Amino acid sequence: MIQTDILIIGAGPTGLFTVFEAGLLKLKCHLIDALPQPGGQCSEIYPKKPIYDIPAFPEILAGQLIDNLMEQIGPFNPGFTLGERAETLDRQDDGSFIVTTNKGTRHHARVVVIAGGLGSFEPRKPPIDSITDFEEKGVSYIIKDPETYRNKKVVIAGGGDSALDWAIYLADVASEVSLVHRRKEFRGALDSVERASELAKQGKIKLYTEAEVKKLYGDEHLEAVVIRHNDTDKGETYVETNAFIPLFGLSPKLGPIGDWGLEIEKNAIKVNNAKDYQTNIPGVFAIGDVNTYEGKLKLILSGFHEAAVMCQYAYQIINPGKRYVMKYTTVGGVEGFDGSRKEAKKEVVQPIA
Amino acid sequence: MIQTDILIIGAGPTGLFTVFEAGLLKLKCHLIDALPQPGGQCSEIYPKKPIYDIPAFPEILAGQLIDNLMEQIGPFNPGFTLGERAETLDRQDDGSFIVTTNKGTRHHARVVVIAGGLGSFEPRKPPIDSITDFEEKGVSYIIKDPETYRNKKVVIAGGGDSALDWAIYLADVASEVSLVHRRKEFRGALDSVERASELAKQGKIKLYTEAEVKKLYGDEHLEAVVIRHNDTDKGETYVETNAFIPLFGLSPKLGPIGDWGLEIEKNAIKVNNAKDYQTNIPGVFAIGDVNTYEGKLKLILSGFHEAAVMCQYAYQIINPGKRYVMKYTTVGGVEGFDGSRKEAKKEVVQPIA
Ligand SMILES: Cc1cc2nc3c(=O)[nH]c(=O)nc-3n(C[C@H](O)[C@H](O)[C@H](O)COP(=O)(O)OP(=O)(O)OC[C@H]3O[C@@H](n4cnc5c(N)ncnc54)[C@H](O)[C@@H]3O)c2cc1C
Ligand SMILES: Cc1cc2nc3c(=O)[nH]c(=O)nc-3n(C[C@H](O)[C@H](O)[C@H](O)COP(=O)(O)OP(=O)(O)OC[C@H]3O[C@@H](n4cnc5c(N)ncnc54)[C@H](O)[C@@H]3O)c2cc1C
Repeated sequence: MIQTDILIIGAGPTGLFTVFEAGLLKLKCHLIDALPQPGGQCSEIYPKKPIYDIPAFPEILAGQLIDNLMEQIGPFNPGFTLGERAETLDRQDDGSFIVTTNKGTRHHARVVVIAGGLGSFEPRKPPIDSITDFEEKGVSYIIKDPETYRNKKVVIAGGGDSALDWAIYLADVASEVSLVHRRKEFRGALDSVERASELAKQGKIKLYTEAEVKKLYGDEHLEAVVIRHNDTDKGETYVETNAFIPLFGLSPKLGPIGDWGLEIEKNAIKVNNAKDYQTNIPGVFAIGDVNTYEGKLKLILSGFHEAAVMCQYAYQIINPGKRYVMKYTTVGGVEGFDGSRKEAKKEVVQPIA
Repeated sequence: MIQTDILIIGAGPTGLFTVFEAGLLKLKCHLIDALPQPGGQCSEIYPKKPIYDIPAFPEILAGQLIDNLMEQIGPFNPGFTLGERAETLDRQDDGSFIVTTNKGTRHHARVVVIAGGLGSFEPRKPPIDSITDFEEKGVSYIIKDPETYRNKKVVIAGGGDSALDWAIYLADVASEVSLVHRRKEFRGALDSVERASELAKQGKIKLYTEAEVKKLYGDEHLEAVVIRHNDTDKGETYVETNAFIPLFGLSPKLGPIGDWGLEIEKNAIKVNNAKDYQTNIPGVFAIGDVNTYEGKLKLILSGFHEAAVMCQYAYQIINPGKRYVMKYTTVGGVEGFDGSRKEAKKEVVQPIA
């Protein structure tokens, strides 16, 4: 069982910054996220787009924001359980909690922080009978390690940036890449559309537009897909393949958290912002996009503030009766759990001349 | 009279970022600050020191933070009344306010935001009879424009970074620089102490340590100071000079704001953080270090959040009945009042191959 001071559900910008604020208070954090990488919406939905309202960044790419946060929290050695969804919350007699994921990983902590954003990201699945039978047997909705596809035949479905970018990437890795899209037009960054165009012309991407994958075949493992063309004259195409990767985007679902006995309002968790962002279950906090209170703004900068305030109260729960005296980072420096230390240059006191 | 939508008292990080959040809502801001430059504590007390807890900056110098904020708010053309202290607040019959400074500058706005930090910075003055008589006649506590001292004789008093840095700077500008300090030891950045040492050895800074300026002489204007040595054997030294600049630091004082009828607690202004950071006077908000509520943290990142929330409520006061629909900056872009426009690269929708 994974043991930590603060268990954070959701590794978006809010969950990540919590690690830093907790670290200043010498509290150790572990994060769970359904996605295979940290960063929440910033990494999954718009990593290459600029954000303009992060204080003191006139402009920063969402992906860069996450990289910076990962660097900032590095010294506090957070643990990660990625690619798993937090499924159950069990309160123990001593007031601590055990959180278990859909894959059975168990985590134990005195304080649980839900920084789940709009919910755990779940792939949109195409309506194909038997698709769930082939999951982990050739069908995936997320590409975790592109090397899995080296020298394999791959069919990608979708018409957005993910489908384009992965088709481009895998054109050099897989032995054959087919790209299937319902419409003629793709929607994506100009350079991705242009690059995919080039590869299609060279035959390195086999293009099937105005078409959809409708059937899957295989015994133990996926062996082929059937592509149906909108133009009924063209009928169906049978394509042998080792992998089928529908990339129709991920949609967030509050999911299991909705059944934990938390007060829910407008698909978000109610907290009392007058104080500490604690939920109706003592010891369970909710911060960032996932919470709601009067005047709530779903902004990244608000998640940062909520994290800082919340950690002060978590400290009191984890260290009852102990008094914490806040020191500015400029004055006290930052002491990492990895033995690192950052601090301002000391002043000297000495005579001159 | 200066006319604006939101009048901000205090140009520290909180006041500055308010300009950005207001700008997104198409509200125009004007700032008043007692200091000659924007940036509050960051610029005045520790511009060259690193801060470690600004989200997504593993490290940033306080002065750089302010530079970044100035760049970020640039497109919203804020007005500044610098070097003046907000003295009185007068509520008008229509619910708007007139704020007048110690120099008589008047500002009119529907919403007033107090982002006054620990208070307006006032110089610590040495206990010399007649010092106030020579203010603006040779005595200054802040150097606004070093060129004023070109080819003049200058006496600086103090033993910290400001005294050292200005003595070093003016050594090349003034015809004569004397540096007077009560103790033998100076306290400052190592390179400043070393550089001052060099200049003292070369005779470019005349050094009087374990000594204090005790008397000022002059008719219309300052003509000389008398330096008394701790070592009574040495007695007194008479130094002809055009300027006397005691740099004993600035100390913040809540000052006149304390008399505006606001609810004060622990030298800070009480607000209701459950909602909008409004004070007991409707239309007057308090954000950043200057406010207090249960769980308040005097952190820069909290001032940023408070500014964003507060601006939403200011919008409703300034545009009663109008509905504002929040758009992410990434999605809606940023439209400056200067005609500039920032936005994410548009996606293309087009066929490939
Ligand atoms: C296109 C776009 C543009 C935007 N532009 C801006 C902008 O300009 N400025 C701004 O401030 N904000 C912007 N936002 C909003 C911003 O991205 C969010 O406010 C921010 O991501 C919220 O951070 P978070 O950490 O609270 O949640 P999220 O980023 O949503 O992260 C939550 C994470 O929790 C995980 N999770 C949830 N439930 C579970 C579970 N049960 N088990 C495991 N993991 C779980 C999810 O998988 C997710 O990774 C934009 C959003 C979008 C989509
Ligand atoms: C050495 C030091 C290190 C610090 N380190 C950190 C850190 O690591 N992290 C962190 O988050 N914070 C840190 N802080 C605190 C941080 O600087 C403050 O939280 C921040 O400056 C508050 O910003 P503000 O805009 O609310 O107020 P301030 O920066 O105090 O600015 C307020 C401004 O209002 C002006 N003002 C007030 N009253 C009037 C009036 N009547 N008329 C005109 N002007 C007026 C003042 O002159 C001042 O310029 C540190 C502070 C110090 C001194």
